[in-house]
Amino acid sequence: MPSEKYRITDLGEKEIIKRLLLRSQNIPFKSSFFDENFLKSLSDDAALIDFKDNYLVATSDMLTRSKHFPEEMSYSQIGKKIVTVNVSDLAAMGAETLGIILAMGLPSDLEVSKFDALIDGILQACEKYHMALIGGDTNESKELTLCGTCLGILTKDKVLMKSGAKYKDIVAVTGPLGLAAAGFIVLNTDDKKLKNLSPEVKDKVIKHALEPEAQLEKGLLLAKTGAITSATDITDGLLSEIDEIINSSGSGIGMTIYEELIPITSEVKVISHILKKNKLKMALSFGEDFQLLVTVNPDKFEEVKKDYGLYKIGHVNSSGEIRMIDKEGKTNILQPEGYEHFKKLSE
Amino acid sequence: MPSEKYRITDLGEKEIIKRLLLRSQNIPFKSSFFDENFLKSLSDDAALIDFKDNYLVATSDMLTRSKHFPEEMSYSQIGKKIVTVNVSDLAAMGAETLGIILAMGLPSDLEVSKFDALIDGILQACEKYHMALIGGDTNESKELTLCGTCLGILTKDKVLMKSGAKYKDIVAVTGPLGLAAAGFIVLNTDDKKLKNLSPEVKDKVIKHALEPEAQLEKGLLLAKTGAITSATDITDGLLSEIDEIINSSGSGIGMTIYEELIPITSEVKVISHILKKNKLKMALSFGEDFQLLVTVNPDKFEEVKKDYGLYKIGHVNSSGEIRMIDKEGKTNILQPEGYEHFKKLSE
Repeated sequence: MPSEKYRITDLGEKEIIKRLLLRSQNIPFKSSFFDENFLKSLSDDAALIDFKDNYLVATSDMLTRSKHFPEEMSYSQIGKKIVTVNVSDLAAMGAETLGIILAMGLPSDLEVSKFDALIDGILQACEKYHMALIGGDTNESKELTLCGTCLGILTKDKVLMKSGAKYKDIVAVTGPLGLAAAGFIVLNTDDKKLKNLSPEVKDKVIKHALEPEAQLEKGLLLAKTGAITSATDITDGLLSEIDEIINSSGSGIGMTIYEELIPITSEVKVISHILKKNKLKMALSFGEDFQLLVTVNPDKFEEVKKDYGLYKIGHVNSSGEIRMIDKEGKTNILQPEGYEHFKKLSE
Repeated sequence: MPSEKYRITDLGEKEIIKRLLLRSQNIPFKSSFFDENFLKSLSDDAALIDFKDNYLVATSDMLTRSKHFPEEMSYSQIGKKIVTVNVSDLAAMGAETLGIILAMGLPSDLEVSKFDALIDGILQACEKYHMALIGGDTNESKELTLCGTCLGILTKDKVLMKSGAKYKDIVAVTGPLGLAAAGFIVLNTDDKKLKNLSPEVKDKVIKHALEPEAQLEKGLLLAKTGAITSATDITDGLLSEIDEIINSSGSGIGMTIYEELIPITSEVKVISHILKKNKLKMALSFGEDFQLLVTVNPDKFEEVKKDYGLYKIGHVNSSGEIRMIDKEGKTNILQPEGYEHFKKLSE
């Protein structure tokens, strides 16, 4: 039977989730508190639950030692990361954080001192993002596995979603891209090749890789402007997230971005030069930067940009494609080849 | 350094969670929607979030292939179990289900047909418990790891909690105990030893082990009676849960249970006889039955019992101890030796 040989590796992560959520829509729902249309989003970074004047926002992210926590990441940084990736999903929707529940699969030989460092990191991140730790569950697991579920809230008219981008909207990001990629590349490179790299640059990019930050405050402020037509956070790479926004709009739009507008810092440029890596690829395809990607009403862009420091990278087109105008002025059609779990990408 | 040798195995699961939640209480909380006392429970089966006239209820449970899904459990049953264990925590609080978010760590070689069976089980359980699948996350993981986060809701005056048991309250359970234990014992026993066991009995106990059910409806109905003074679900064994309720009451109470009142079915008795296992131990210490343990106002017990089929097993005493009156009328002091992750129990 051919289907017997069909493995989960052959599907992408997004295809898996789609399978799950699409089939779930046929379940009859019964509640004395909510009507059957209480769920306002199935393809966003977090679920939106219609609750009186508000949306309750809920999202889960699971991270595992072998896939998400490199050797060099301390237990405190691991604790911070599980909170940060969840908060980033809330930031993408303009939600205020409420709290996080942490389910932990712990190897039985984990030292208590390391577990305490993990808790330190979790609590520091909770404090940073003004939220409570509201529950926990622990289990024994072969590899360290952390699952965070973050709850947040927002008023209905202030929600940011993946859908809503319109032709001629400005495409922008909240900060520079490629720093986390540079950090991971440095971590995976032999020290000898890095002898021309200054310790400051090295430390900065490694910190971006091992201790990312969520753009919670910016998400909240941008949601209040009323100028943002769609938004998501950049976890899987800019191109992949652009593709998500295009697919969510349902109106045949695409995006045109300009190579010279992609915000790439001097650190990323230096590292790409020393290690002969493609800096554009680091900025467009790697992910883990946790900046926000937004589309903005063009009439309001200049004001929002001034107040919140957005980086314009392009505009919404009507071609249905992702196009990049390079530095020579030539148009390139790009594929959304961001990092996706389970799918191996060509180098 | 001695602490370097101190492993997580040396702590119990409850000690780990206590470490985590106690330390979290010092985090300053800032919200424009909630006041800083929004969290009403830290030691219950689920978190209670104060939201206008209601409590929003949230709980996470993580299950792993090696610890929670025996070989004999089908992928559909695995899907049902991750939903059931989460719903059981809501049932213990008298909450109505809203929905579940599922984060999944999947081995990369998992066949799609098995994944689809897993989804089938998840969706069947969602339908059974009148709830929606509201979100998902997938990752690659060495072993199959499922983390469910269940959201529910209740009106404030109808909440069941672990605290609240009073001296002279009746102690009761919602159904027979030891069936899941019997099922797991049968699964782990050589077929030759089972030749005197009827297929009906075998199938029944195995079904209890592999396909447990949450007492959602009973939890909801019991909460509405106003007669229940405390409640929890029996996941880790009756004695362990009794200990939880005693510790949550904060008033020096204990419980006296009667051996002859423990509801043990004929199937459990037959299996304990054939395999020379202690049936009382199966009922008191194994867990996984997912019945509810409640304490009931003695003036209202008879009426509640009649309407909802409760099994009285004893009463709340003032000794601070768990006492069992055996069939000879002798009093035994019991230790709360229920199943706890990370702690090895003496046989």
